[in-house]
Amino acid sequence: MKKDDIKFWGMISNRIMEETHKVIKPLVGNPKSGEIVKMGADGTPTKFIDLVAEEKVVQILEETKKPVTLISEEIGELKIGKGQSEAVLVVDPLDGTRNAIKNIPAYGISIAIADPRGASKLVTDPSKLISTDVEMGFVKNFATGDIYHAKKGNGAFHNGIPIKPSQKIDVSGSSIGAYIYRAKMSKIDKLCKTVRSMRILGSVAIELCYVADGTYDAFLDIRGNLRIVDIAAAKLIIEESTGIVTDEKCQMLENGLNVLDRTSIVASCNKTIHREIIDILGGS
Amino acid sequence: MKKDDIKFWGMISNRIMEETHKVIKPLVGNPKSGEIVKMGADGTPTKFIDLVAEEKVVQILEETKKPVTLISEEIGELKIGKGQSEAVLVVDPLDGTRNAIKNIPAYGISIAIADPRGASKLVTDPSKLISTDVEMGFVKNFATGDIYHAKKGNGAFHNGIPIKPSQKIDVSGSSIGAYIYRAKMSKIDKLCKTVRSMRILGSVAIELCYVADGTYDAFLDIRGNLRIVDIAAAKLIIEESTGIVTDEKCQMLENGLNVLDRTSIVASCNKTIHREIIDILGGS
Repeated sequence: MKKDDIKFWGMISNRIMEETHKVIKPLVGNPKSGEIVKMGADGTPTKFIDLVAEEKVVQILEETKKPVTLISEEIGELKIGKGQSEAVLVVDPLDGTRNAIKNIPAYGISIAIADPRGASKLVTDPSKLISTDVEMGFVKNFATGDIYHAKKGNGAFHNGIPIKPSQKIDVSGSSIGAYIYRAKMSKIDKLCKTVRSMRILGSVAIELCYVADGTYDAFLDIRGNLRIVDIAAAKLIIEESTGIVTDEKCQMLENGLNVLDRTSIVASCNKTIHREIIDILGGS
Repeated sequence: MKKDDIKFWGMISNRIMEETHKVIKPLVGNPKSGEIVKMGADGTPTKFIDLVAEEKVVQILEETKKPVTLISEEIGELKIGKGQSEAVLVVDPLDGTRNAIKNIPAYGISIAIADPRGASKLVTDPSKLISTDVEMGFVKNFATGDIYHAKKGNGAFHNGIPIKPSQKIDVSGSSIGAYIYRAKMSKIDKLCKTVRSMRILGSVAIELCYVADGTYDAFLDIRGNLRIVDIAAAKLIIEESTGIVTDEKCQMLENGLNVLDRTSIVASCNKTIHREIIDILGGS
């Protein structure tokens, strides 16, 4: 992505984060926000608050007057403007919808941006982009105002300050985020007995960023049902912070940037602890 | 407890919540807050931020010039002033210490108040009070500013507004808070596969209040290691909201108000769902 494009899409991402926050704010903690208004492109129901957030994202992208592709949970793939897309934005307009409805303070937006003209493989179809093509990532926790962001090759930041993962080197005594409650118990028994503390806040995008800045030592979601739109931005943020991200079998995440691909994820502060978690899970 | 005493201790509790928040605020997210400064009365290490919070509580109680007994994690039992205590305050000055240190937005204070002169059994020794003697309970989430409180026989409130638990009547599809990661896997397997969503925010006091106001349908901590100081206030808040609280064997919690008693807890929005959870856990 060219320097001017990076600047432009950074500005647009900031605008999206700010304005989406504004429109969902009055809906937080309101049961009406949870009413189902349609079925999303990924086959899961779209709630009112999700729709409000997504419409704001679409509106801002339309106002750029640029040809772009939006990939988002509810809408699927949406081409905006004419001609080849200058950018592909993979957006979860509201990650942690249930938290927002219930006013549990962990919900926010995730924006990942790829340039189809500069992708790793020559692609004319934006849906052929894969998660490693993401060049910019933004995650904002609306409840706290915290913003995490990264540009490829340029490090990761929390509220503008460079971040690094924790230096923990063993799982024993570690603090992890862990979506394991639909996984096989035999797989997670040892892990549960080894870690020092476990959290499930209910926003994967935000909790992945917690690995990037050392809040968590690791994060895993091994329900096998995780959407790429939820992790596309945070994956770059962790990698730019020098953390590690793979699936539970220690394979690189090279999923397509679309709403249908699903994966597991293990993210860790470093290779040592990553290997240990993968081994405990029996993944490879 | 007499009307004037209720008013007085309510005012003191508000002052404790406000001023304790002020002193810990600059320490949130600061690694120094997590340095171990001494061993607490319950045998667990006291961190710097815990000590700062507790010292503020002690200072405010001393300033009341009333004879009171403070029961708190770090300090154990502290008699303040001369003569028979007019009130026993069971306080966790900072519930969710790890969250406060890491700036995960769920940490706060828990204050439960009993009147030894009006206890269910004639007691001269404050440590003989049990959790059902608690007459007032306050929990504040410092990260969000939310305050939950209850007075016995007078209902439960969130930021001054009366609250009720959710009306969910089956575990399937429920949202629960669940500290289960050191429990027997055989015990929790079915539960994990039945609920719709599971959270572990890292502050038991706050998450118990989430049952009182319908944010969670239920909450359980079956690690068997839960301190009474962590739950004394929230237990009253749930019961006053018409929710149900027992241990995992469906026994009433009648633990002593001291720092050594430990328990499990299951709290639910109503009897139907409570029974179902107890059955799933195989508790009785």
